[in-house]
Order: sequence, then C-alpha cells, then structure tokens
Amino acid sequence: MNESTRLDVVGRPARRKDAGEKVRGKAGYTTDISLPGMLHAKVLRSAIAHARLAGIDASAARELPGVHAVLTRDEIGDDIAPTYGYFIKDQPIVALDKVRYEGDTVAAVAAETEAIADAALRLIEVEYEELPPVASIEDALSDGAAELFEEAPMGIVPAYGAGASAELRPRSNVCYRFNYETGSPDVFETCDHVFEDTFHFSRMQHFHLEPFAAVAQWLDGDRIQVSTSCQNPFALRKELGRVFKLPENNISVRVPFVGGGFGSKNNCKAEPIAILLARMTGRPVRFALTHDENFLTNTQHAAILKLKTGVMKDGTLVARDSEIFLDSGAYSDASPLVAEKAGYRIPGPYRYRHIRTSCYCVMTNTAPAGPFRGFGGTQTSWACESQMDMIAGRLGIDPLEFRMKNLIDLGEPFVPGESGMDSDLREGLELVAREIGYRERKRNPLPNRGVGLALGFKDGGGVNKPAQARVKVSTFGDIFLHCGTVEIGQGAHSALAAVVAEILGAPAGRVRYMPINTDHTPFDQGTNASSAISVMGQAVERAARSLRAQVLDFAADRLGAEPQDLDLEDWHIRKGNEALPLAPMIMGYFGGTGWEFTADGFHKAETDHAAPLETQCVFWELGWGAADIEVDPDTGLITVHKLVVSGDAGQAINPLVCRGQDEGAAVMGLGQALFEEMVYDGTRLMNGDALAYRVPMAQDLPQEFVSITQEQGHGPGPFGAKGMGEGGMLPVAPAIANALFDATGVRVAALPLSPPRVKAALEKNS
Amino acid sequence: MNESTRLDVVGRPARRKDAGEKVRGKAGYTTDISLPGMLHAKVLRSAIAHARLAGIDASAARELPGVHAVLTRDEIGDDIAPTYGYFIKDQPIVALDKVRYEGDTVAAVAAETEAIADAALRLIEVEYEELPPVASIEDALSDGAAELFEEAPMGIVPAYGAGASAELRPRSNVCYRFNYETGSPDVFETCDHVFEDTFHFSRMQHFHLEPFAAVAQWLDGDRIQVSTSCQNPFALRKELGRVFKLPENNISVRVPFVGGGFGSKNNCKAEPIAILLARMTGRPVRFALTHDENFLTNTQHAAILKLKTGVMKDGTLVARDSEIFLDSGAYSDASPLVAEKAGYRIPGPYRYRHIRTSCYCVMTNTAPAGPFRGFGGTQTSWACESQMDMIAGRLGIDPLEFRMKNLIDLGEPFVPGESGMDSDLREGLELVAREIGYRERKRNPLPNRGVGLALGFKDGGGVNKPAQARVKVSTFGDIFLHCGTVEIGQGAHSALAAVVAEILGAPAGRVRYMPINTDHTPFDQGTNASSAISVMGQAVERAARSLRAQVLDFAADRLGAEPQDLDLEDWHIRKGNEALPLAPMIMGYFGGTGWEFTADGFHKAETDHAAPLETQCVFWELGWGAADIEVDPDTGLITVHKLVVSGDAGQAINPLVCRGQDEGAAVMGLGQALFEEMVYDGTRLMNGDALAYRVPMAQDLPQEFVSITQEQGHGPGPFGAKGMGEGGMLPVAPAIANALFDATGVRVAALPLSPPRVKAALEKNS
Repeated sequence: MNESTRLDVVGRPARRKDAGEKVRGKAGYTTDISLPGMLHAKVLRSAIAHARLAGIDASAARELPGVHAVLTRDEIGDDIAPTYGYFIKDQPIVALDKVRYEGDTVAAVAAETEAIADAALRLIEVEYEELPPVASIEDALSDGAAELFEEAPMGIVPAYGAGASAELRPRSNVCYRFNYETGSPDVFETCDHVFEDTFHFSRMQHFHLEPFAAVAQWLDGDRIQVSTSCQNPFALRKELGRVFKLPENNISVRVPFVGGGFGSKNNCKAEPIAILLARMTGRPVRFALTHDENFLTNTQHAAILKLKTGVMKDGTLVARDSEIFLDSGAYSDASPLVAEKAGYRIPGPYRYRHIRTSCYCVMTNTAPAGPFRGFGGTQTSWACESQMDMIAGRLGIDPLEFRMKNLIDLGEPFVPGESGMDSDLREGLELVAREIGYRERKRNPLPNRGVGLALGFKDGGGVNKPAQARVKVSTFGDIFLHCGTVEIGQGAHSALAAVVAEILGAPAGRVRYMPINTDHTPFDQGTNASSAISVMGQAVERAARSLRAQVLDFAADRLGAEPQDLDLEDWHIRKGNEALPLAPMIMGYFGGTGWEFTADGFHKAETDHAAPLETQCVFWELGWGAADIEVDPDTGLITVHKLVVSGDAGQAINPLVCRGQDEGAAVMGLGQALFEEMVYDGTRLMNGDALAYRVPMAQDLPQEFVSITQEQGHGPGPFGAKGMGEGGMLPVAPAIANALFDATGVRVAALPLSPPRVKAALEKNS
Repeated sequence: MNESTRLDVVGRPARRKDAGEKVRGKAGYTTDISLPGMLHAKVLRSAIAHARLAGIDASAARELPGVHAVLTRDEIGDDIAPTYGYFIKDQPIVALDKVRYEGDTVAAVAAETEAIADAALRLIEVEYEELPPVASIEDALSDGAAELFEEAPMGIVPAYGAGASAELRPRSNVCYRFNYETGSPDVFETCDHVFEDTFHFSRMQHFHLEPFAAVAQWLDGDRIQVSTSCQNPFALRKELGRVFKLPENNISVRVPFVGGGFGSKNNCKAEPIAILLARMTGRPVRFALTHDENFLTNTQHAAILKLKTGVMKDGTLVARDSEIFLDSGAYSDASPLVAEKAGYRIPGPYRYRHIRTSCYCVMTNTAPAGPFRGFGGTQTSWACESQMDMIAGRLGIDPLEFRMKNLIDLGEPFVPGESGMDSDLREGLELVAREIGYRERKRNPLPNRGVGLALGFKDGGGVNKPAQARVKVSTFGDIFLHCGTVEIGQGAHSALAAVVAEILGAPAGRVRYMPINTDHTPFDQGTNASSAISVMGQAVERAARSLRAQVLDFAADRLGAEPQDLDLEDWHIRKGNEALPLAPMIMGYFGGTGWEFTADGFHKAETDHAAPLETQCVFWELGWGAADIEVDPDTGLITVHKLVVSGDAGQAINPLVCRGQDEGAAVMGLGQALFEEMVYDGTRLMNGDALAYRVPMAQDLPQEFVSITQEQGHGPGPFGAKGMGEGGMLPVAPAIANALFDATGVRVAALPLSPPRVKAALEKNS
C-alpha cells in the first residue's frame, strides 16, 4: 500500500461485514440469549396518567405457580438508589410515590415464562389516588397546573463556556433550562424588520425493530453481568454502578448486535428491572419489551419553537431571539442535553450579530422523551428553515438567494469560540437546488406543484466525547478491532474495519470487529451524535497507525533496515522488490507461540473554555434537501414527486453505507413530514402500536428519490471523513413545507403535513 | 504511598483473591459451564498398546437414540490438519493408521448425556492388527524394536545459540535429541578421578484435581468459542488455528478457573475432540475427562540419566558428560522442550571447565509424557544431587563442603553466555543445613538415622517468553487487571493484583483480575515455567507504573502542578497536605460519563545469540532441601522425621502464597521420593486410578515439616520478586536418598525409595 497515492479499501463500495450473519439469521441479538435457568420478566404499567400510589398488593401474584419474584416499591431497599436519569435522577425503577404517565412502571414479575409473568401482573392490585393530568406543554406551563414533581429530584448542571448557562428547575414543571447569548439584543433596534413566528413540532417514536431488551445475571452475589440492546454501554455501566452501589469492575455490560436505536437505547431502559429481578431470584432474567411497550418507554420531543428574527431589507440577517419548549414527558431522560443542543442550533448555519436562545424542558404526563436521530436538530431545522423561506417571501427575495447571502463560509465559526464550518454550505445547497431544477421551476411554475429547499444543521460528534480504540494483530496477520462503537445497523463496524484494513495494508476481511464488553472493550462514551467515524474513527485510525509503525519498527530491527524504507502489504514486509512474510520473523523473535502486536488510539476534542459548550464541536453535520411536490387542493394530500437529499461524508469510507444512512434518515424525515406522529388524546396515546402508528413503507417513497453523497474532504475523521446518519433527516420536513408554500402560498407551521392539516390551511387561506 | 520507603500491600500475608469464591463454591470451572442444547462427549480408548487400525464400524453407535455424532478417522477430512503437537505434529485427534498405547483415542461420541455416549462407545467395533509393543526406553532402543512411527512426522527444531543444537529423529524411536557442549572434553584426561553413574527416574501423573475438560461451540459456522481448563490459551489458539485452518481472530479461547495443572494443561488435550464434535452436531459440546483418563492423557517423563563426572582429588569439579533418555510415551507432546531443559540443567549449579550433554526423547507404547512441575529439573536434580553425594563420599569429603566448594557464585553465569546466578546458593544451603542440624548430626550420627542435603536447580521463566499486561482504572478508581496468567491454584491472581494495588496506592480489594479470553486478554505465552511473577509480573508492573504516571500527569495538568509533586493514594491525589478526589477531576475533563485510564506493559527476555538457548534465562529457580530420616532395616521403610525446604522468592509478594507453593511442591516431591509412581506391567498401566495411585496425604507429611521463604532480593520481578512453585519439588528425592546413604551406606539410584526397593538394596549391601 502506498497510502499517499492510492486507497485500496477506503472509498470502495463493499459488502457490510455483518451482512452475512444478518442474512443467515446468525447475528446474535440480546433476545437470542438463552441461559440455563433463565426467567422472563414483564412489567405492570399504569393505566392512569397521574396519581399518587396509595398501595400495592402483590400477594396473589407471588403465589402463582411459576412466579419467582414480584418487584414493587416495597422490595426497594436502602442498598440501591431507586431512581436513575442522565442528569436528573428522577425516573424510578418501579413507581415509588406516584405514577406519572399511562404506561409508567408500577411492578415487575419474573416467572418461568412470559405468559406466567403476564398472568401474574393481572393479579397485582394497585390503589391509586388520581391527580389532575398534565397533557401538553401549554397545560404544564399554565397557572395552577398540577406538578409532576413536588420536589426537584437531584440533578447536575454541566459546566458551560462563553455565553451559555443552564438552570435546574427554573419553574414548576420545567426540569431544565438552557440559555445562550452572544452579541447584544440592541441590534434588533437597527433592523429593518423583525419577524416573530411560532412553529409546532410533532412527536415520533424511534420505531427500532428490536425492542428494548436485557438479560441479566448476578455472579457470586456481587457481580452483575448484563447483555443489553444499548447504545452507550460505558455510561450505562456507570449509572448501574450508582443504582446498585457497586464498583464498575463488578459490572460487565455486554452489547450484542442492536436492531436499531436511533438514540433511544441510551442509559437505563430494560436493565435495572432485569438486574433487580435477577438479584431477587438468583437466576438469570430476560426482560424483553414488546413493540407496543417501546412507545411507552422513550420518544422524540414534541416542541413549540418561537423565533424572533431581525433582518435588513437587503436580506442580511442580524439577530435572532428564540424560545424553545420541549415536551420532555414524565421523566427527564436526556432532555437537558437535547435542550442544550436545540438551544445551541436554533440559529441555523447563518451569520448573525446577535443570538439569544432559551430552551425549556417541560414535564408532562406522557411517555418520557429522549435522544432521537437529529437530537434537537430536527426541531430546530424545522422552525429555522421554515422561517427562512417565510422571511424571504416577506422580503421578496428568493429563498435560495436569501440563504446563499447569509450562510457562513467554509472555515467560519458558527458562533464565537466555536470551530470553523467544515463544509462548503453553498456548494451543497447549489447541488440540491440544481438537482431539483429549482431555478427552472421558479421561472416556470406548474399548477399545484412547488419546490422547496432546506438545510439541516447540527454540531456532530457529541460534546467532550473521549474515545479509545485498540487494534491487535496476531502472528499470521489476523486483525482484531476492539472499540465500543455499537453496530446498531448503521454500518459502523464495516467502516471502522475498513479504516484499519487500509492503514495496515490488509484486505477488509482480515479485520474482525470484536464483541463489546465493558470489562475489556476500550472506553467510549456512546454510539450517538454521529460520532462513530468522527470521534471513534480518529481513535481507530491512531491505533492502526501506531500498530503499523510498531510492526515496521519491529521489521526494520529484524532486517537491519530503516522503517521508512519498508511498507506493509498483506502481512508481508515490502522492502524494495521483496515481500517478506512477517509470521516467520515474529516467531523467530518471539518464539513459536508467536505474538500479538497491540496498539491503542485515543481521541478527545480538546476542552476550550471560550467555546459555548466548553468544547469545540467535532464536526458539522449537514443535510441538504430539496423537494418537488404536488398538492391535491381537494384533499390536502401531498405527493412528493422528487426528493433530493445530500450529506457531506468528507470522504466516504464505504459509499454504500453512507448512502444507506442518508437515505434511511431521509425516509424517517419523510415520515415525520407527512404522516408519522404519536397522537395523544389528552394524556392517552391513541396509536401506540405498529399498525396504528404508521412508518413509511416502500410505497411511500417519492417517485424520484435521489441521494448524493458529497465528499468535500474537510472532515476530522480518517482520510477526511465526517459522521453520517442524522443529516439526511433534518431538511426533509422544512423542504416539503417550503415546497407546499411554493405550490399554494400557504404556510403550515406544524407537523405532520397531513391531508387534514393541509386542507384546513388551504381552506383558511382561500 | 511512598514506595521508596514502605510497602503497603506487597510483602504482607493476605487472603487470596479467589478464596471467597472457591470456599463458597462459586468459582467457575470449565465443567460448570452449561449451554443450551449442550451435548456430552466420551471417547473410545484402545485396549491394545500397539496395533494397525484395520477398520472401524460405528454404524450401531450412530443409531443409538440420543447419539448426535460419532467421530472416527473416517470423519476427518482435508479441511482440517488431523494431528497436533508442540514441535512435532504426531498426535492424531483420533487414531488414523495406528493406535500407539493402551488408552489411545480411537473414536469419540457426542450424545445427550455422558451415559448415552458411554453406551454408544460400546457399540463401536474396531478391528486391530496387533504389532509388537515397545514398553520401555531400553525396549525402544534395542535392535529390531518395533517402530512407533515408520515415517518421521513433521516437526520443527528451534534456533539455538552457542554450543546448543538439536536433531529431529536422530534414530528409530527417538523423536528428538538435544545437545549442548562447552569447553573441551580433553580436560577429562587431567582429572584425578572420573566417575560414571546411572540413575533411574520414575514416572508420576500430575494428579490435578480438575480433569481435562473443554466446552466448545461454533458460531455462524466459522468461529470457534472454546472454554477450557488450560494453562496456555494463546498457544492453544494458535494450534487450533492450524488444526482447524481458521484465522486466530475466529477462535476465542476462554479459561475459567483451573483446578490444578502442574504442566499437563498445555496445548491440545480435550479441545480438538470437543470442537470437532461441536462442528459435526451444530451444538455446544462438553468433553470432560474422568480422573482415570487423566492417567492416559499426560504424564511426567520417566528417565535414565548417565553421568560421567571428572573431578580433582581436592574436590574441584572439572568436567561432566551426560546422556539422558526421556521416556516420551507414544506422542511427542512437549518432550523436545523437556529434553532441552533436562539437557541444559544436568550439570547443576556448579562450576565446570567442560560440559557435554545429550538428551533423547524416546518413544514407547505408553501414555504421552509432557510438561510436569520442575520440567526436566526433577530428573536432573535427582541424578546430579545424588551423584554429588556419591562423589563426595568417594573422595572422603563432606557433601556439604563439596557443594560449597563448587557452587557458582552470586552473579556468576551458569554457562558461557548465560545470565548470572541471582541467588546466593551457599546462603540457602547453609540455611537448610543449619535448620536440619547437619553438622551436629554428622559429628554425632544416630543409629538407622541419616541426614541429607540437596539443591534443586532450574532456569525459570521459560525461553524467550514475551508477555503483555493491561491495567485500566475507571472513574471512581475501580481497577481492572487484564493478563493471560491463568489462576491454576498457585495464587498468581492475588500476587499480580497486589503488585498493581501497591503501585497505584490502592487496597488490593480494588483490583479485579479479569476473566481470560484470547479475543481481548493481552498476549501471554502461557502459565508455566514459574513465569507468572518473573515474566508476567514485569509486564504487570510496567503497566501499573505507566498507568500511575498517566494519572499523575493528568492530575498535574488539571492542577497546574508538576507530576513529581503529586502522589496517588486511594484514588485521591496527594498534593502536600491535600487529598483531592480524582473522580470529579476526571468528569470535569472527560464529561459525565467519565473515563478509563488504560496502560499496557510488556516484557520479554532479550534474544542473545551468545546464550545457548538464544535467550538468557529470566531467573534461576532454586529449591534447597534437607531431610532427616530413619530407615527400618527390616522393612526398608523410610520415616522422614524432618524435612526442610526453602525457596528464594526474591521478595515475597504474598508470603502465605509463597509458602503454600514451596510446601505444595515439596509434598509432591515427597510423594515421588517415597511411593508415588505410575506402575507399568509392560505397556499396561497397573495403577491408573486415584485409589491405586497413591498421592501424599496429610498422614504422609514428615513429623516436622519446615519451609523457609528466603527473600534475597535479586529477582527480576516486581520489587525484586522471583518465581516460585517448582523449586520446592526438586531437592526432596535426592535429599532423602542422600540421607538414606548417610543412614545406611547404601545408595539407591532409582525412584521411588519404596520399602521393597530399599530393603533389596540393604540386603544386597549386607
């Protein structure tokens, strides 16, 4: 390999490493685990949204044959911390004093079979004292609203840098508020126009095909072994250590293949109950939720976004004040972090002289909301990109030109102290505009047809994320890649293995991605924030380069040569025209048992107190989108004739995987744009099952669906790569809403753009 | 911790880390593993010592209900290499063309239960064509002896340094010969006396309480996962890779607790059959041998040792030529390496001007012989130390004085190119002589009583052994120790964890020794040659020191201090009078998920082409012994009134563990000295079961049993430690034989010193 001139593995479309196993049904998921003596768990869920728990009688359930344990608040002793949460420890393993949403966990049973456990649940008698329910953001903030928490649960506020701050429980039913300010609000007075608009954002469920699941067992009474469908095993281990009051070296978190996560599978989900029941029974316990229970466990944040934007008549953006209200549901989960991200991103990738933003996490008696693909960026892109078109329209400027005028340049920081933009935003926007035929259609509009553009935007790679990776190679050149990035379907294993193969001059097939177990897998904060390539990729790259150097140094020493005169090629040392096999060299030096070369790589974004989030963002994740739609004026039905999405992979490690990520994200965005939504009647979820909750299917795809993987080459990852997988989600809904406006002159500021909502808007406008 | 002045953990007697689990019956051994669908294996063993395999009919066995697979030579295809071995690949997984000893593996069955498998074995019909058996070394080397192998199986000869060499199959029924020579044989002509004596050494079985066992399964058809009771998982993985033609990253070898090994549990034992049956059945297969089968699987080497020693009349040793014939049994196993070690060590730790040695591995139709505690050192110490007393007697010099005159000095190399002696040999010898009251008893002998001394000697730590270790510490100071040293009962986990705790300023309880799995455990050649502290200990020490430096650097950076002004104490940074907790510092920098500090340590003895074994030995393992015995002249029964053994731990990491190792080894030596022996009638083992094969029990202990752990401080290991665990075995038999001579004037040159043998010698002498 001569890496300066040629890439042999990276950049080539290749079959995914997990394809064979998955196609043959051999890929092991958590629910495939079967252990001798394993019991099955089920939980009793509250049918009431908000109530004080007056009493529980589980005696009949305990006596049912085949039942091994019933867990209620009465079984929670001082030996554990009974609540968990990312920042605010407000979610109980089972309800303690109250239930806070329909579906809240009241009790759990471990039994010989799931059927017995289900039967036992029906024998548990619960006495509730009902309280007034809080159904929505508006309800929660209204005067005299019932309080979900009478006392603020313990929580922490992260350190923030210049201009950013946060408060815990700034007011009743608000668990967290994030604030950011730069420049001076005085500049609003200098603006030619100030536009204030409000946007509503709907709530989706992640709809991962593999539900939440965990299999737990205790070893020798003081060690936990848990296999789980989880995106962040190390964070989970730390939280389990806190809950179960155990050192981290007594907790082994293992993660098999994960059947989709989209953000939901972070932190405690099925694990605490499985672990506690395993301790109570002395048996392994499997707790696998049903699909319907997923809807009751974690969701996206519905939101209200209020934007006040000051602009000059020539279209120059000047100032933006924003207020965002996130519906956090009944427990805080990752809401504070989503609030931070939404609050930070709401200006979009445009140049302002002043920004002020507040983002509130509002508690309601609905299912808890947590991380979701886009992580606050879906909400903000929806509002920001809708308002961009609205302002352009009001100023009589073309929306494309309006964006082009205000977009920040390549290398320009988003806000003071922040890292420079690492994509040419205009290049991407021009690309999708041209692909959709934007200018031609603006010149020659078609009846009931419209085109719209949007630009999704988020800081990617996570905050402050450290990652470590390890590569080892045995005597005959068999490569082991150890890192904590979970394969959740995104193809990260293939991409990271390709990086290693490229650097070590090996075919990708020589690299095996090793199973994840916190006991020995190098530390990683979690598989989220599109960090696999951008953060872990850097750690993997360094590990592989360090290993390569180690091998070349070893060979140079053996051969009496200089390392720079040698190259590594398919586990041979290339020296001039010779290709010398490494295995005999290794056994000659290390003995017949051979050896393993091992190297670690580390990456962490440096702390920077001048940056608002105290760390400059790892990379900027963009999603450019364009839609060409037709509206049926009689029904309000939108037909998407063509959808264009484009992300910037920096350098595609595996183009097929990149494209898959952008397209998958775009289809998820399409669902949210047009029909996918968790529908509540008050506090009751009306469509919490797969049939009623409608995800996009093949027939929902646009007639023409184009995805373009840009490779602008500015990413921080290996070979210039950037993270993928969330950007494609972001521009779809605003692009379609903008196209709807283009087609009809009607602005719909709430999602989804369903026929009734569109029809009502058309009627109101007519 | 101020390590220059005080040790907090190291050197203190402490409860072993595994004590709790073992006492509570919670320590997991291979046979405790139960997997869903697991089958059980049994093997059919040859009742004939030497025969051509004419045919096998397993059809009836295959049809027995509950039988899932029968493995015979007919199931061995080209997709595997059908034979294995350390250096010479001569041992078939199941018999191919011949059977070569009573107990050789002919076929294997996997069935629902062991009972069904046993029943199936009885249905297998085997047709043998008997061949003349080769029962002993003398038989094997006699003219016209039958040949075990008509063609030499493939094998390798390691590289040797100055004066050493080896040959594969130098003659019929000899698979390997090791040679060493230094100085010139001409010096014999200058000697005042040349003494030639021959010694016979008996064969023991290791008698590990946990028999050989393996549980194997295949994942997705091309990956092996095997848990096994094994001392060298990485070497095993390499050999399994060769046999099953798989890359090493497709083979995961896991080692739970091991219930004793004493050398036997190296390389392939139960694993190939378990793995092959698992492949044939698509189910996990457990193959656990019985105790009786252990006797048919691996044994110590019986030996004949011929010593020719030239000496001056003042007692100065001048020259020694030796020939050693090891009974390797039917397959070579580790015989070549044992031959190397026996051939290298036969001069003992004395100063010569000329040494010449040849050591032959002789094949016989008996159970294969392999590594055994002492590894060639038991055979050579027996012969060398017996002859030392014989020569002293012939010259009329006191044996103690004779030894003192000829012992090499502290720091003096054993042979040219070798590393210096790292114990003061005279100090140790004086210690045991004084403890047994040697000089007083020589002045005032008692009737039928005698005292004897001996010095066991071996190069410890293995040849060319590289080792790697990893220490990681999580946010709250929970320590993970990853290394490949198997806990086989020797207490290595406790000792290595103590080293880590000492260096990191933590209580030993904070360190968890992580389970071994070749997928992720750092590389190690194997748990043998007393290498745990002397080789792995150095790797562990370096890992811990590197980690300590990393943490202090991190803290210095956070605190704006210099690392040398900081100390680490119970996961606090000691800075002057302050003790600052590390966890908040870590989360402040790495974020709320925390971090793990990780460091690797590496050790390998440097290659040195001037050293006969191409590597200077890691350390010298000594065992000094003294015995005070009484002989019953009527029966020949020896009663040991007092036995003194002493090893040099350099620095005892855990004095209780060191003492346990020396005492355990000495009792094993006592068994071999007095009664423990595999008794063959021709090629038939007569006492291959626990009742008939007599290991020492509590009542066999000497009336007075003294062990003294010297801490001379010259070891290469952490804090000056040296390996332990084999030295105590070495001096016991020759010390007792020398005491027997002292008591009776009769020299017995064969083991064991059983009443019939002693009585016969007494009668012959009278």
